[in-house]
Amino acid sequence: MNNNSKRNYYLDDIPLEEAIEKYFNALKKYFSKTPDELIEVTKANNRITSKPVFAKVSSPNFNLAAMDGISIDHKNTVGATETSPKTIKIKDFDWIDTGDPINDNHDAVIMIEDISKISNNEIKIFSSVSSMYNVREIGEDLIQSEMIIPENTKINHFDIGVCLAGGIKEIKVKKNINSKFIPTGNELINLGEQSTKGNLIEFNSYVINGLLNNIGVNTETSPIIKDNKELIKNEISNSIKKYDLVIVSAGSSAGSEDYTKEIISELGEVIVHGVSIKPGHPVILGKINDKPVIGLPGYPISAILINELIIKPLIEKKINHKIHNNNQIKAKLTRKLNSSIGEDEFVRASVGKINSEYIAVPLPGGAGVISSIQKANCLIKIPKNIEGFQKNEQINVLPLVDINDIDNTIICSGSHDLVLDLLKSFLLKKGLGYKMAINPIGSLGGLLAIDQNLCHFSGTHIFDPQTNQYNLPFINKFVKNNKVKTINLVDRIQGIIIPKTNPKNIKGIEDLNNPELVFVNRQKGSGTRILFDHLLEKSNINSQKINGYDNEKNSHLAVSYTIHSKNADLGLGIMSSAVAYDLDFIPLKEESFDLVIPETVLNEEYIQIILEIIRSSEFKKNIESIGGYNTNKTGEIIL
Amino acid sequence: MNNNSKRNYYLDDIPLEEAIEKYFNALKKYFSKTPDELIEVTKANNRITSKPVFAKVSSPNFNLAAMDGISIDHKNTVGATETSPKTIKIKDFDWIDTGDPINDNHDAVIMIEDISKISNNEIKIFSSVSSMYNVREIGEDLIQSEMIIPENTKINHFDIGVCLAGGIKEIKVKKNINSKFIPTGNELINLGEQSTKGNLIEFNSYVINGLLNNIGVNTETSPIIKDNKELIKNEISNSIKKYDLVIVSAGSSAGSEDYTKEIISELGEVIVHGVSIKPGHPVILGKINDKPVIGLPGYPISAILINELIIKPLIEKKINHKIHNNNQIKAKLTRKLNSSIGEDEFVRASVGKINSEYIAVPLPGGAGVISSIQKANCLIKIPKNIEGFQKNEQINVLPLVDINDIDNTIICSGSHDLVLDLLKSFLLKKGLGYKMAINPIGSLGGLLAIDQNLCHFSGTHIFDPQTNQYNLPFINKFVKNNKVKTINLVDRIQGIIIPKTNPKNIKGIEDLNNPELVFVNRQKGSGTRILFDHLLEKSNINSQKINGYDNEKNSHLAVSYTIHSKNADLGLGIMSSAVAYDLDFIPLKEESFDLVIPETVLNEEYIQIILEIIRSSEFKKNIESIGGYNTNKTGEIIL
Repeated sequence: MNNNSKRNYYLDDIPLEEAIEKYFNALKKYFSKTPDELIEVTKANNRITSKPVFAKVSSPNFNLAAMDGISIDHKNTVGATETSPKTIKIKDFDWIDTGDPINDNHDAVIMIEDISKISNNEIKIFSSVSSMYNVREIGEDLIQSEMIIPENTKINHFDIGVCLAGGIKEIKVKKNINSKFIPTGNELINLGEQSTKGNLIEFNSYVINGLLNNIGVNTETSPIIKDNKELIKNEISNSIKKYDLVIVSAGSSAGSEDYTKEIISELGEVIVHGVSIKPGHPVILGKINDKPVIGLPGYPISAILINELIIKPLIEKKINHKIHNNNQIKAKLTRKLNSSIGEDEFVRASVGKINSEYIAVPLPGGAGVISSIQKANCLIKIPKNIEGFQKNEQINVLPLVDINDIDNTIICSGSHDLVLDLLKSFLLKKGLGYKMAINPIGSLGGLLAIDQNLCHFSGTHIFDPQTNQYNLPFINKFVKNNKVKTINLVDRIQGIIIPKTNPKNIKGIEDLNNPELVFVNRQKGSGTRILFDHLLEKSNINSQKINGYDNEKNSHLAVSYTIHSKNADLGLGIMSSAVAYDLDFIPLKEESFDLVIPETVLNEEYIQIILEIIRSSEFKKNIESIGGYNTNKTGEIIL
Repeated sequence: MNNNSKRNYYLDDIPLEEAIEKYFNALKKYFSKTPDELIEVTKANNRITSKPVFAKVSSPNFNLAAMDGISIDHKNTVGATETSPKTIKIKDFDWIDTGDPINDNHDAVIMIEDISKISNNEIKIFSSVSSMYNVREIGEDLIQSEMIIPENTKINHFDIGVCLAGGIKEIKVKKNINSKFIPTGNELINLGEQSTKGNLIEFNSYVINGLLNNIGVNTETSPIIKDNKELIKNEISNSIKKYDLVIVSAGSSAGSEDYTKEIISELGEVIVHGVSIKPGHPVILGKINDKPVIGLPGYPISAILINELIIKPLIEKKINHKIHNNNQIKAKLTRKLNSSIGEDEFVRASVGKINSEYIAVPLPGGAGVISSIQKANCLIKIPKNIEGFQKNEQINVLPLVDINDIDNTIICSGSHDLVLDLLKSFLLKKGLGYKMAINPIGSLGGLLAIDQNLCHFSGTHIFDPQTNQYNLPFINKFVKNNKVKTINLVDRIQGIIIPKTNPKNIKGIEDLNNPELVFVNRQKGSGTRILFDHLLEKSNINSQKINGYDNEKNSHLAVSYTIHSKNADLGLGIMSSAVAYDLDFIPLKEESFDLVIPETVLNEEYIQIILEIIRSSEFKKNIESIGGYNTNKTGEIIL
């Protein structure tokens, strides 16, 4: 950073609603026109009509036979009965198939089953029929000049069928908006380019353009542009001539290399800089030549939120057509959420349905963590006038996916193990539409969630030194409000994870007395942490003297990764996570990793499928191939 | 029709579930393989993974600054306080921007706002910080080798972002199914071809292929093939080599030109012919070379139903991935529905939500009426073991569209007028997401629907000879359970519709005494019919002597179209419908067409918008340009 360059420290954040109002007012001229175009109706799926469509021809265009049989003038059938049938000669009838046009002199069809054939030229009929009997009349489906699609209608495949039936070949639709995405930043590289320290693969363009494609925007992306004001200015200036919308990625915060605001001011006008939402606040809303230019924050979650909250409504207003938005649903929050007064905060969440009540699990992760929105199926909005929500509070959540996907999301809260990932994979492989959200809140957290109906099932492994037993003493103690079944998922080996070839010659837990060694710990409430603290006590080691005792990770893999990255010398964890990073492992203890399942959901299809998976030999074979696991009790009910 | 050719009169219909089971069992070999392919991840939206995806690199791949400021080793900050700040020299810190990688010797970032700059080479800090303070740690988002997408997952744009962040360029996905649609029939022509009597534009291929495209199938269509066994056989035989699924359109019923069954038997095996569903029963489910070949009925609604009920589940099974299906909803039926025992019958319906209860209006129209499914937003299934449903019965309906679209569907039951179409157009033009379903059940039917909360509002025009008043006497008589507001939509002129130049020299209602003249009537319960019967009475004309008195049409336009098509000499209707077909018109009476709106919905946004539209001068100007209307009272509340 060049510390001498001008900094825009103070963004005057304004509320979202105010920002949108101000911006849209400034874009009045832009919104006033929606150009249209004539396109082939067969290519019009998802396009929006700019004019009503009228049938050119009736459908059917002639009277048609609705049955196989003969056509006839109904007047010639008068008097025919079962007991005195009438003989009809070929000059007065035609053999006819379903869909055939009817002779102009005929107005009724008698089914083949209802006549008696004397010869090819003579038949008998046994009852009289009325005019239009078994006839599909002209215009039954569509009447010529009838309006078949109104203006401002989103076309689907049924509409296309109706247009074709009505003889329509081309229709007038609103032109698609086209947008240009300009990624800027010295740190950005293209996927596949050689990465050096501090490089980031540019992926925001794919995510944002993909979301825009979903709502009918044609998108393009410029090459990555370095942090050079003239280059960026040039690209913006050229793009605004050709595109309806220009998005400049990053360069919207107060960093010293952030030229976007300056450039928009020079070429046009900055209407808003800074909106009081989190994440996403340093957005720039500008216009050049009466077209919108948006400076998008660089963090992916910020960019996605600005797209949902500002760009999508802008597109809707431009094409004057509300894009389908999911309705909010009510859900019970599984933990307390704090937020600052003065800004709308948006938190990603996994939502599932337990005993016909929705529950929302907030996901961790900052604005830079794209995986947090990938794992989420809903957004929680904490409005700017409150300080957050309480645990168990009923709140509104906004679905990011279809409501059916939320209804089929199974929440597994508690301890995490690679075998749970395997279970999730097996469940998905079944292709039945079930999703599984693993919420790693530790064994104790999982038991409390079970007690309060805040998850579908839980994974747990807590050692009780008093009884020398796993899990059951804790289930009895913490799960009071639900009857549960406990089922062994797997037995696994806990031990000390160390670098390959054990360079510091670590032998056991006692080595932690050596203050030179850097330890990496697990979070409080996790079964591994409880085991570790128990082992320390047994070995008389003072935890406060351990270098790195406060360095907490939320998963076995994160512990292994820390050692693999040489940020720690040892940690406690399961063998499989050591294997994953090709680390060495000193076994300490075999433990039971059990699933706790409330009886209220035990007979649900998804639980039955999960149990079936767990008890299959294929699943056990897969577990064993990981290493460090014992499947002797897998699938057994623990009494 | 060649009456000598073999007919397959008797289809042995079997229940749908049985047909599917039998068919899928016969296709076991087909379902056993799902080939996959390696594709660029940026093009993987909506594709389904065939293998799990693991991160190639961590994200971020280095420790990064989470703020603009300076990076530092946290140990060098120990002791700094507000009252005794610490001076740090350039050798011990770096100027750094958000997103910049951190020097290997540093482990914390202090915000620019929290330091005091002495020179470019010297700063003061006012508090100590901990390790990783304001640092985005390696792997915060993704840890190298972590599974980021499981097998059998449908990829969305967030997944694509996560893959790119994890350094993934290509992923393995299931190959898309490809299907071939073969339209057959002498009567079919391509859109744009010169139509002669009995021709039908081939549109089923576009509708069915479009629906298949929606679920990820790559589709192709062969040219239209005439009813010639060798030609059809050749096309099927060639297609089955290249495609995963072959659909032969029409040729599945028992007509004499129906070769499909014969051909499939010769090339492979017919597994099922005839399923007890309506419409759609004459479907053929066959296999050739262990691949499915389906003989689709020719009626569009039959074809669409077979696609939903059989082809879609077949695709799901082939790719082993459940396609999102809408959940059923409970709705109150607005009229009795009869059905035959022994077949599942599917009826199209408009469903809307009134006072938080869904109501379902069954739509008329046979299997040949594509516009019936275009107008519908749900399907009603009448199971084979019952004879139908009662009016007001709570039934399950299956949404064809998103549930939000159903929630925003406004049902207007009652009399029909072109001004209601205009109102619908104006409402759609607003682009707010509201749809309007016009349910033409006549003025009286509309008032009964209002009384029973079976519609959102109603259009009515019934003349009461006793009071010489329109509508109010009938509203008072028939609407007992709802308080309503009555608002004038328009005054319109009723009269006699006759062909241009009046060739039969018709002067008035008295001419109906002439039995040579063919009349076209409106349906019972319609305001126009009530007016007509009143005029007949006044003129002492015996309705039973009128030629065509029983020929009932459901709309003004249908009456005009019948006269335009020379199927009748005169009819009663409104001037605008005469104008639409360039017919002549003898005015008889001006009448009030009013809207009846229950007070329970009066303050809903959609009603407020509708009233706003009605009262706008633009709307009135549009009405007047049609001709035959008077807008003096339009929008006024009728007391």
